Amino acid sequence: MNTTLTHRKARIADLPRLVELLLEDELSQTRESKLTPLDENYVKAFHKINSDSNQYLMVVESKGEIVGTCQLTLMASLTFIGSTRMQIEAVRVAEKHRGQQIGSWMIDQAILYAKEHGVSIIQLSSNKKRHQAKHFYEKLDFEASHEGMKLYLRKE
Amino acid sequence: MNTTLTHRKARIADLPRLVELLLEDELSQTRESKLTPLDENYVKAFHKINSDSNQYLMVVESKGEIVGTCQLTLMASLTFIGSTRMQIEAVRVAEKHRGQQIGSWMIDQAILYAKEHGVSIIQLSSNKKRHQAKHFYEKLDFEASHEGMKLYLRKE
Repeated sequence: MNTTLTHRKARIADLPRLVELLLEDELSQTRESKLTPLDENYVKAFHKINSDSNQYLMVVESKGEIVGTCQLTLMASLTFIGSTRMQIEAVRVAEKHRGQQIGSWMIDQAILYAKEHGVSIIQLSSNKKRHQAKHFYEKLDFEASHEGMKLYLRKE
Repeated sequence: MNTTLTHRKARIADLPRLVELLLEDELSQTRESKLTPLDENYVKAFHKINSDSNQYLMVVESKGEIVGTCQLTLMASLTFIGSTRMQIEAVRVAEKHRGQQIGSWMIDQAILYAKEHGVSIIQLSSNKKRHQAKHFYEKLDFEASHEGMKLYLRKE
């Protein structure tokens, strides 16, 4: 077990590093912007996330360095007798820190966070192109019981 | 096309009917409560949803009767250059009004709502036991590109 890891809520100063982490992912190469200074849409999105009490943009640190991130969203729901769901998005571990169980530590922390917030259902969707990801989440007791369906809207 | 349909934000007075709609679903029989008066967790969840500006609990009416519902959640995100995602949950059409394209009308309205709110990605997960649902969403241009993974937490 990796005992040097801690997590905290992301701060605006973390944003360049968080975008770097998003970019360290094969599927994200064409999705993100590498411009310096950062595209202002990242800054706007950060402030929206940061000011929403249902959002926790998690930053994982090891020895003062950001090594992982994920985004947790709490969603009140009528279903399951008024349950709270938690959506996990944008799970990333820094390239040079992979293979150290940082991802599973981070998801374990997300599960703890969910329990502390009265969540009944944790959910996420994993791109079918990420062949190892399904197995990774199954080892953490997630079940691939659903089809994850997406519709991308074009700017008009 | 069904021209008698309208949609609006759910009100507290709709809650008993909305729980009825949740119950008119084979997978929900063991999930929901049929108690009268309503389990107070439904009321608490309703108020959380109702007071959250990122939530739209949609009620579809035809001739003054509630015939459908779904829940839309806007989620700011860093990914895709600071995009906004929209999650669709708890899609239900009243049993006696099925086969009238109310579901597809409702999802079309959800897509319009998403466009009005600057959403780039609409997402939902569909239980693999609902064999027709995947095809229903594919006809509406959704792609089953992801595994929808769930972890149910036990009360401890």
